[in-house]
Amino acid sequence: MPRKTVIIGGGAAGLGSAGGVKAADPSAEVVVYTQFEDVAYSPCGIPYVHGGEIPDFERLFLAGKQAYVDAGIDVHYETEVTSIDTDGRTVTVGGEGVITYDNLIIATGFEYADPGVPGSELGGLYYVKNIRKAMEWDKVIAETKRAVVVEASPLALEMVTALAHRGVETHLIDPNPYALATMADADIMEPVQESWREMGVHLHFNTTLKAFLDDGNGQVRGVSTSDGDIAAELVVVATHKTPNNRLATAAGLKLGSTGGIIVDDHMKTSAPNVWAAGDVCEIPHGLTRTPLQGLTGSHAYAQGKAAGTNAGGGDRAYRAVYVPWGTPAGKWVIGGASFGETTATALGIPYVLGVAEGISRARYYPGVKKVKVKLLAEPGTLRLIGAQMVGGGEGIKERADFLAQAIRFGMTMHDLSTMENVYSPAIGALNEPIVVAATNGVAAAAKG
Amino acid sequence: MPRKTVIIGGGAAGLGSAGGVKAADPSAEVVVYTQFEDVAYSPCGIPYVHGGEIPDFERLFLAGKQAYVDAGIDVHYETEVTSIDTDGRTVTVGGEGVITYDNLIIATGFEYADPGVPGSELGGLYYVKNIRKAMEWDKVIAETKRAVVVEASPLALEMVTALAHRGVETHLIDPNPYALATMADADIMEPVQESWREMGVHLHFNTTLKAFLDDGNGQVRGVSTSDGDIAAELVVVATHKTPNNRLATAAGLKLGSTGGIIVDDHMKTSAPNVWAAGDVCEIPHGLTRTPLQGLTGSHAYAQGKAAGTNAGGGDRAYRAVYVPWGTPAGKWVIGGASFGETTATALGIPYVLGVAEGISRARYYPGVKKVKVKLLAEPGTLRLIGAQMVGGGEGIKERADFLAQAIRFGMTMHDLSTMENVYSPAIGALNEPIVVAATNGVAAAAKG
Repeated sequence: MPRKTVIIGGGAAGLGSAGGVKAADPSAEVVVYTQFEDVAYSPCGIPYVHGGEIPDFERLFLAGKQAYVDAGIDVHYETEVTSIDTDGRTVTVGGEGVITYDNLIIATGFEYADPGVPGSELGGLYYVKNIRKAMEWDKVIAETKRAVVVEASPLALEMVTALAHRGVETHLIDPNPYALATMADADIMEPVQESWREMGVHLHFNTTLKAFLDDGNGQVRGVSTSDGDIAAELVVVATHKTPNNRLATAAGLKLGSTGGIIVDDHMKTSAPNVWAAGDVCEIPHGLTRTPLQGLTGSHAYAQGKAAGTNAGGGDRAYRAVYVPWGTPAGKWVIGGASFGETTATALGIPYVLGVAEGISRARYYPGVKKVKVKLLAEPGTLRLIGAQMVGGGEGIKERADFLAQAIRFGMTMHDLSTMENVYSPAIGALNEPIVVAATNGVAAAAKG
Repeated sequence: MPRKTVIIGGGAAGLGSAGGVKAADPSAEVVVYTQFEDVAYSPCGIPYVHGGEIPDFERLFLAGKQAYVDAGIDVHYETEVTSIDTDGRTVTVGGEGVITYDNLIIATGFEYADPGVPGSELGGLYYVKNIRKAMEWDKVIAETKRAVVVEASPLALEMVTALAHRGVETHLIDPNPYALATMADADIMEPVQESWREMGVHLHFNTTLKAFLDDGNGQVRGVSTSDGDIAAELVVVATHKTPNNRLATAAGLKLGSTGGIIVDDHMKTSAPNVWAAGDVCEIPHGLTRTPLQGLTGSHAYAQGKAAGTNAGGGDRAYRAVYVPWGTPAGKWVIGGASFGETTATALGIPYVLGVAEGISRARYYPGVKKVKVKLLAEPGTLRLIGAQMVGGGEGIKERADFLAQAIRFGMTMHDLSTMENVYSPAIGALNEPIVVAATNGVAAAAKG
């Protein structure tokens, strides 16, 4: 008898899991339940179709449904799992009844945090998630003159830029003094915000959402804020991600302080034969063991692969994270790894700072872009604890990947100040900005 | 009395040295002798002005001569040092006589290897080096219909591409079966060569230069090769770099197997109070201790900084190298770190290979480019020993920097297969090509 793995969720974590199970145990029966009409597309691409950078939604699809059939993965579309019984090893499925499993993987993903203000039932509130809905909302955007984006989250960075590209008068409201303030430093976001202003975006910081305003017909006509009303036909609710933990909570699984399911280093939950992966979990930060939740699609996929491999009888660890990140924002690309000044300060972590304003190519080579690099290190040892960057684009993502791995491996500012770098005018400057920042950090530390 | 440091050479190593001395000892007297009319320009940019990517030579200048005067660095232009007396601590300088020093830094750079064939005295042979001469040669290129580039060295990659861009019928001759064969692998160079063919370049591999042919008036009219004659009005002699060690040899300094001056980890030579930096030295490879010579301007500058700091009474180590490299070539960018298959095989170093054909952005995002990554690791431990890449451009330089540092820190294919990566459609793909290559390498090693 083949063993049966049930997977709840058809996103990156769910499909990563399905592939992991099949790789470890090709004879396994794998059933994936998803509420949606589709799997195997890139939700991360949606803002870029809205912005016009990607010409159509069809390109976001990676594989047809047949590909999963061919791989022996049985995807049940538009099907909701309503409960889990970990003792009986069953799930209850809408339209299918009680279904048994040998192994279960929970990959139910995230929900946007409830804004907690009146009017959340109104039409015209856009929660960016599902591609079919995005196709409908794209037609709304085409007709929209004024839009409000609520909370300057990573998604908001993309959506503000996208709406501005589409010629919509865009207002961003956020309770913090600058955008992405729970993650990025003010000096990193400054050029982004300046570029938004150049693009005609209206920024409302230190501003709290009080209500979505009803036009009298159940459609939103704007928002009420601590700083007055803003009229708009469309509101993008880009609140932070929270784990979609309803099923896990009801099933009695152990949750952590973020609300995410607690998993061990093999993505195993507190319940027997149950694994979890993706935005529904929390994962410890590699330096502080602080639980983190709501990482990227790349993290979700890798976690799914680990959960699936282990559910399939294999052995694949998923370790603590050091969180490289990056995204275009306005006319810039920002990125980093682990802690910035803001997050380190909030956590009470002391640091030495090394900063450099460098360039991506030889200063005389066409297309040269600025690259600002900030490195944070532990005082004394000068072991790297974080990095933040803003630049014209080139190499921000690759540097963020590198710096996260450098943090994982305990590299110090000394180590980075003595690293070699490629020098070739069209692709790299004489002095790599990371090296200059580290050298400045070593000098700053020596001065005390 | 301020201490006096004499520096022979006004390139990256010489000027890096001058800055290093001044930083360590602001009161030091620093005299730099250069044979040329200029310092502080980027010779690495010359091929790109010839190719038309950079509009003029003036942009290659970094600082005016006054900047060095202001920094207290006394540069003697068009001045040749003809001998060194390390016992008497003097140098003999053309037009100045015998000059004493407290400390001496030799930064005499490289020379192109003598092709060792008849006709090397002819006009029309271009050795790319000095910017004033490059300005003159640029006018020659404008009139040239057919050119031959001798030896498929790193410089040749740039010059072949540049000449093709300028519409010159370009022939490349090299004794090896493919371009850059002493450094890069055949599969990495294959797309480069294909792109050159598309650009109309004629490739003559397995072909030995026999003579430069005289037109009867002392001008070159082409080359004679093992495969017949090739007519050309211009020949770019891009033979490999050899250390310009004449002064050091005559002074009795210890030289290594490459002909480069042997230095310790503080860039100190075998003679008292004499340091050396740049292409005139040899530096051990970090993995094999094999001496290397003819690295990049970035290496020369960093070595100069170390030599100068130490000559100035400071303490700055310069350690073994792991050699990240990268350059545009044809329509591609190639790069790597430490050993490829060809070099590992030549040195008798066994390896496990991990290869991936990845992408630089989400597959649906405009501007997405291919990135092929090859990783080589020590069998058993799977510690990284080298990497080679070819791609559309994005992130090759930053990946090469990272991989060299990964080699230095003993990272394994396991470590790279479990690294996190940024996923954001416009700047990075779901799966980082380095991670995929490492994962494939781990799988290949497991299969034996």
